[in-house]
Amino acid sequence: MQRYFLQREAFGSDLVELPADVVHHIGTVLRGGPGYQLVLLDGTGFEYVAEVVTLDKKSGTARVVEKREATTELPVDVTLAYALPKGDKVELVAQKGTELGMHHLLVFESKRSVAKWDAKKVPKKLERLQKIMQEAAEQSYRAVVPTCAYLTPKELTARFNAYDAVVLAYEEVAKHGEGSAFATVLTAARPGSKLLLLVGPEGGFDEAEVAGWIEAGAVPCAFGPRILRSETAPLYALSAISYALELN
Amino acid sequence: MQRYFLQREAFGSDLVELPADVVHHIGTVLRGGPGYQLVLLDGTGFEYVAEVVTLDKKSGTARVVEKREATTELPVDVTLAYALPKGDKVELVAQKGTELGMHHLLVFESKRSVAKWDAKKVPKKLERLQKIMQEAAEQSYRAVVPTCAYLTPKELTARFNAYDAVVLAYEEVAKHGEGSAFATVLTAARPGSKLLLLVGPEGGFDEAEVAGWIEAGAVPCAFGPRILRSETAPLYALSAISYALELN
Repeated sequence: MQRYFLQREAFGSDLVELPADVVHHIGTVLRGGPGYQLVLLDGTGFEYVAEVVTLDKKSGTARVVEKREATTELPVDVTLAYALPKGDKVELVAQKGTELGMHHLLVFESKRSVAKWDAKKVPKKLERLQKIMQEAAEQSYRAVVPTCAYLTPKELTARFNAYDAVVLAYEEVAKHGEGSAFATVLTAARPGSKLLLLVGPEGGFDEAEVAGWIEAGAVPCAFGPRILRSETAPLYALSAISYALELN
Repeated sequence: MQRYFLQREAFGSDLVELPADVVHHIGTVLRGGPGYQLVLLDGTGFEYVAEVVTLDKKSGTARVVEKREATTELPVDVTLAYALPKGDKVELVAQKGTELGMHHLLVFESKRSVAKWDAKKVPKKLERLQKIMQEAAEQSYRAVVPTCAYLTPKELTARFNAYDAVVLAYEEVAKHGEGSAFATVLTAARPGSKLLLLVGPEGGFDEAEVAGWIEAGAVPCAFGPRILRSETAPLYALSAISYALELN
């Protein structure tokens, strides 16, 4: 069944008003009408099986048949802090990260980030990432749309205490055969644990940055012995989290 | 150190002739010359630490200082059979799959593959994938360049017996909460085991195809409870294989 995220306020009664974009998608793209079955999501972890009651050109309603807790969220809360990469890689990571269960995306400029976001353009850039994540969340059966924000490295470090563990993707330890730190973190994770993944840009993190983060509590981890591209490392980490915590 | 795959025959003596593209890369792109240190690879799992001895415009030689077995290959041999997706997704999967340790890529047309490869263009398409995989192998510190081939679904099924396990990525089981089949396969894997991963196109596999493959021995597996896009599923599977077999 097609899935749509609505504003949380839309779920006041059993009869839900459908927003214009959903009406358009059901009526024009999918050629659906009254009786069409769908799943509505309130973005807080609940899903509502519903049936279209009325559908006009610009408005429509659906009746909720069943409310249930979604079972598609990772058991831990994962924030990805991703140092701005070149080109549209951050969009690829926003999309794939959402499919793989990421809950929050924090974008920041590290010392070796070649790309920069002009301060004036930040709201527009975040809006675009948010749209990509909402579409990916609907398509991948997520019950929550990840959030995104842009911050400075200093603001990022100041947040470390809010997490149960901070995992630093660090290719230098991969080259030297490190192979257990990430598994140790995941073995210690409990339902509801908050994990922060820290991933650098194409050139990797600067040594001084790494030293500062380790001092602040980050655990340097290798994601296998191969050297992954900047945009591949978050996908590895999220897949491994799912495998370790969901598939056993 | 920069890494280059050479033909296996190049390693007859300690003094290795460098091919023209490597000479160009070292001399013109990296501005290196005699004394420049690099790693040469024979594609069979060995790496050779070497030093440039002579470097002219179009020719050059390097002396091997040390030959060693590479430690960056997955302990199991993984073949990805990927049903032709739309657009350039197969290129993304070739690149990322190489970074994540894939050994062979088999491309085939499944019933719901919208994209088709014109028979005349197959060699050119495979050549392009091979080039992408070689570059990704050099960049990710692989010791082997994955191979690729194009075949029919029938030829694919006929090969099932050559593998210790055939993992079928099947989203229908993901929707119904399956969560242990993939872990069971990986727990049974031993060093040198041969695994075949079978991943469908955007619309997923057709039910008859699935039934045929299961009858031929494939194990339907979910890669977590979320529904992954066609190009994300192989990356999840390869990351999980690395996590399960390399990071413990």
